[in-house]
Amino acid sequence: MTAKVTLNHIGIATASGNTQLEKLFRILGITRGVSEEVKDQGVNVHFFNLEGTPPHLELLEVLDPAGSVAKFIEKRGAGIHHLSFQVESGTLDSLSDTLKKEGFKFTYEAPKLGAQEMRINFIHPATAGGVLIELMEASHATQN
Amino acid sequence: MTAKVTLNHIGIATASGNTQLEKLFRILGITRGVSEEVKDQGVNVHFFNLEGTPPHLELLEVLDPAGSVAKFIEKRGAGIHHLSFQVESGTLDSLSDTLKKEGFKFTYEAPKLGAQEMRINFIHPATAGGVLIELMEASHATQN
Repeated sequence: MTAKVTLNHIGIATASGNTQLEKLFRILGITRGVSEEVKDQGVNVHFFNLEGTPPHLELLEVLDPAGSVAKFIEKRGAGIHHLSFQVESGTLDSLSDTLKKEGFKFTYEAPKLGAQEMRINFIHPATAGGVLIELMEASHATQN
Repeated sequence: MTAKVTLNHIGIATASGNTQLEKLFRILGITRGVSEEVKDQGVNVHFFNLEGTPPHLELLEVLDPAGSVAKFIEKRGAGIHHLSFQVESGTLDSLSDTLKKEGFKFTYEAPKLGAQEMRINFIHPATAGGVLIELMEASHATQN
């Protein structure tokens, strides 16, 4: 099976109140989009839109110091956190099965609902060259 | 001044011989492009093409254990290394001046020639929320 993926966004972990990247994005002409709290990861998510997007840039601003993104910053420092690939609706489960058979490990046993009502799961960086990779699909096609 | 940038690629630092990401990209339908040695950074650069690219994915495979990418892996581990934004030809120098005035620091005093004959420079992650950001422009327009 070969999947068909698009790069949806690049997640960047940032400490609460750090505005350096926002200032940089403004100078680079990268415009601010919607914001959304994602309690599960203890962050406020701020989307920034590149020309011809996706991909978007997604600033993950830490709200909960015990959350997974805060822990990432403790361990590796603030900075690029993950790459998110969107797969065609209805294919996430079969793709995940294929990847598990090939030795890739996932963070969640089954996909969860994330920002923008997407079904998401993460491939564990220990099995993917140190890169945290999110796979996502629009949830509507699988909830019917 | 507001720049006009496009996301050209995402650089990923990888140890020599680690094939996990290549295997993952193959399953995700991300195809392999050209490879090129960049001696200045002590790496072999392997481009992978996403649908509707750019952005590309750029695997930076360490050749020189004393190079900058090897040092990055020593410090932070293998994984996502930088984001590269392409600016319009002929605007890199004035944009760099603007950014310096706004407090952003650069790795090189002046842009160098990088892969794909691009003029490149890096914004230092200490001034950009922990993210290493490459700015690049096609060199032909400025060499004439």
